[in-house]
Amino acid sequence: MIDKKLEELVKKSVTQTLQEKNVLGKYSKINEATQNSKKVLSEAYVAQPTKFNLNTELLSDKTKAAHQELFEGYIKELNATAAQLDTADRENVNPNHSQFRSLKLDEIHNHNASFLHGLYFQNISDVNSEISADSLAFMRLERDFGSFDLWQEDFVACCMAARNGWAMTVYSFNLKRYINTVIDLHDQHVMVSAFPVIVMDCWEHSYFKDYLKNRKAYVYGMMKELNWDVIEQRFKVADKIGALL
Amino acid sequence: MIDKKLEELVKKSVTQTLQEKNVLGKYSKINEATQNSKKVLSEAYVAQPTKFNLNTELLSDKTKAAHQELFEGYIKELNATAAQLDTADRENVNPNHSQFRSLKLDEIHNHNASFLHGLYFQNISDVNSEISADSLAFMRLERDFGSFDLWQEDFVACCMAARNGWAMTVYSFNLKRYINTVIDLHDQHVMVSAFPVIVMDCWEHSYFKDYLKNRKAYVYGMMKELNWDVIEQRFKVADKIGALL
Amino acid sequence: MIDKKLEELVKKSVTQTLQEKNVLGKYSKINEATQNSKKVLSEAYVAQPTKFNLNTELLSDKTKAAHQELFEGYIKELNATAAQLDTADRENVNPNHSQFRSLKLDEIHNHNASFLHGLYFQNISDVNSEISADSLAFMRLERDFGSFDLWQEDFVACCMAARNGWAMTVYSFNLKRYINTVIDLHDQHVMVSAFPVIVMDCWEHSYFKDYLKNRKAYVYGMMKELNWDVIEQRFKVADKIGALL
Amino acid sequence: MIDKKLEELVKKSVTQTLQEKNVLGKYSKINEATQNSKKVLSEAYVAQPTKFNLNTELLSDKTKAAHQELFEGYIKELNATAAQLDTADRENVNPNHSQFRSLKLDEIHNHNASFLHGLYFQNISDVNSEISADSLAFMRLERDFGSFDLWQEDFVACCMAARNGWAMTVYSFNLKRYINTVIDLHDQHVMVSAFPVIVMDCWEHSYFKDYLKNRKAYVYGMMKELNWDVIEQRFKVADKIGALL
Repeated sequence: MIDKKLEELVKKSVTQTLQEKNVLGKYSKINEATQNSKKVLSEAYVAQPTKFNLNTELLSDKTKAAHQELFEGYIKELNATAAQLDTADRENVNPNHSQFRSLKLDEIHNHNASFLHGLYFQNISDVNSEISADSLAFMRLERDFGSFDLWQEDFVACCMAARNGWAMTVYSFNLKRYINTVIDLHDQHVMVSAFPVIVMDCWEHSYFKDYLKNRKAYVYGMMKELNWDVIEQRFKVADKIGALL
Repeated sequence: MIDKKLEELVKKSVTQTLQEKNVLGKYSKINEATQNSKKVLSEAYVAQPTKFNLNTELLSDKTKAAHQELFEGYIKELNATAAQLDTADRENVNPNHSQFRSLKLDEIHNHNASFLHGLYFQNISDVNSEISADSLAFMRLERDFGSFDLWQEDFVACCMAARNGWAMTVYSFNLKRYINTVIDLHDQHVMVSAFPVIVMDCWEHSYFKDYLKNRKAYVYGMMKELNWDVIEQRFKVADKIGALL
Repeated sequence: MIDKKLEELVKKSVTQTLQEKNVLGKYSKINEATQNSKKVLSEAYVAQPTKFNLNTELLSDKTKAAHQELFEGYIKELNATAAQLDTADRENVNPNHSQFRSLKLDEIHNHNASFLHGLYFQNISDVNSEISADSLAFMRLERDFGSFDLWQEDFVACCMAARNGWAMTVYSFNLKRYINTVIDLHDQHVMVSAFPVIVMDCWEHSYFKDYLKNRKAYVYGMMKELNWDVIEQRFKVADKIGALL
Repeated sequence: MIDKKLEELVKKSVTQTLQEKNVLGKYSKINEATQNSKKVLSEAYVAQPTKFNLNTELLSDKTKAAHQELFEGYIKELNATAAQLDTADRENVNPNHSQFRSLKLDEIHNHNASFLHGLYFQNISDVNSEISADSLAFMRLERDFGSFDLWQEDFVACCMAARNGWAMTVYSFNLKRYINTVIDLHDQHVMVSAFPVIVMDCWEHSYFKDYLKNRKAYVYGMMKELNWDVIEQRFKVADKIGALL
């Protein structure tokens, strides 16, 4: 299904177009390489996953290694999906059975899985975790949830509510406030028009090895080590986006 | 379940805090009214739906009226959900059965339904629809899909692929490009970290009265009347967001 | 993706192996045609849809015709999916992106859609609808719901609850009783181990043309014309199954 | 939400009406206790979970204990949901937000989770596992999949395809054959009208503690110890059901 030439183009373009400063560390699309022809849609992109070295002692080395592998698996499949999409038939699509539909759904599944994991790894495992009361993060959570403690209570509730999925604090473009949301799997119950600032993995693969079914202990542990420096930067961007709306 | 006092507060705050310039026209949260106490989480918000008067002759008056009613129904339930969330128990939440979880899922369902409908009504029904080749919209679609025609082909394919749901062109914060996505119902397969710029309703209620099962005729019709002025403004915002990332 | 020879086999086998007495009227699998080789898995089956001629005046001719077409579309895609499954790679399957997974999901979607529609068409549109108090159906509903009226109330509630989907009364093998269930789309929230006896389509395509958003009027109308003779036969089978468990 | 009297009735009826021979070991509905009044719908049922003592050495004691606890949690929530359903408002139900809808969905989630786990625990962990070529199970799998090996290949593929969910071999009442299916979570992509005969848990909680992300090793292990005596009885029932259709 993957055109051989395209595959070569993809590989070639990786080395040419790696981009810095990205959730995944290095992530680049190959539009540049294929846009001259303008004959086919060019959705293929190539991601090279960051190697995360988590310092936390609240997760075992085995869990960390397995989680990194899962993360890399999602990125691999995201790339495979995107490559296949470039040549998928768009003429005869129907909602009941068509390759294009299946690929678009897998694309979102793997896209979300890849980037949510990136956001998660980046915002946990700060063994010197500290939030200052005059940080933007603190002030915004206080403004929109009533107090920092109430945000925590609500966020933990979201973590406990996910049916193998995620909890997130996002900035909602529509509500113009920060709000907590619950995701099942990687792409169910996702709020449209939102910018994630705090992300917690609540799939069983995150904690079952180390905490068995005690998800709450895992969540409390991760929350004690949230990287508020990373999170602060996200709030700054979110606030700037808010000003544009 | 809805506290009576809260309901009064909600109603009172509507008249006080209606906001201008919003996808829903007027949409305001009642945080202001309740934040003094800081005793409870304040998620309740109040939306007052815009009355859309669609000029298009490609949809019957009955379809237009029914669609407006559905839209108002979603907003009503969004408000009801948000009000109930304010007092929902957050201590004993689990993924298998808890009021908090059910409310959070209904919140997202109704949130997405409300705002997607708002975006949809705003970007259709321009009987003088025209896109200029030097508009930002045109240039970005050309850049990211190879050509305007290829965007169209891909977008129509997404419309045909949705299993009672939506097709959207969004700006993806992760991929740093515009991309088309398929949503089932209102909240399945939603891309995280994205800003919608073109939105098409592909639920059967949009077209079955007028087009029966001929979804393609409906989609082509709506696309001929896309409001490119409205869409242009969204691309401008999306591009500015892109510059912040 | 569909092997040409297989396609011929499929077509040939249709005329050979049509079976009588089936929810879909005529439905046959082509196992017989392919099992000699025993080289490949043979999941392909061929369905030939019944033409339903609904007498009811509560649905327009246009709705009836469009619904029959949708029904035939599901069967067509069920057959296409099954044919592709015969040769799909089973060695390199993963949960994130693989043709086998996509096909298995489409198979269930189209299977359920096909057979639920069959059950629905068969059990509505009896203009002389009547239920006798000494029928098995009546007695079982009374036994398991407290009274016939309570069953009705609960069933209508399920019809109103479906988010574009189905309501069903099923015999549950685990609970050993009849129970009402809500399905979203065709395959979400489906009870395992159950035998459907009463089936109501609550997708918008069933009623939007004729009733717009007044789903309740549609449901009441259909319930007045339930074919209790057809339903009685299903209860008899369900009860016999119950005796085997 | 749970009426106190009802709760007493429930407790009282447990001791009166425990039933033998059930997937969950002891499982009883309280219809008998409440049907005299015929004033309320009586959906509440009470399940008392079997304690499974798995002999297998392919799962750690910690995994076994945690899995038993999860199983008991599902049953607890199934009972809680059913009790709340007895008094839930059925008058004002809508698809967007209503307690009745939320409860019905949780009921199916916990019902499926409870009974699928029961079927799974019963059909694994036979350290002397053996299938005889003249067993009904063997002959039926050979008939419907071409050979026993082809069934295995297809079943393993389904195990690998599940996105945190289940693989099952079921007897399909519509197709009149055994077929393998993939379930996500506990209630997505479930085939209607089917009787499960072989059930494999593919949630991460089944294997992550012991096998990390190597799901295939877990699946192969469990398949080597399938309890074909238990499974044979299920095939016998399935075949008898088939004869009734």
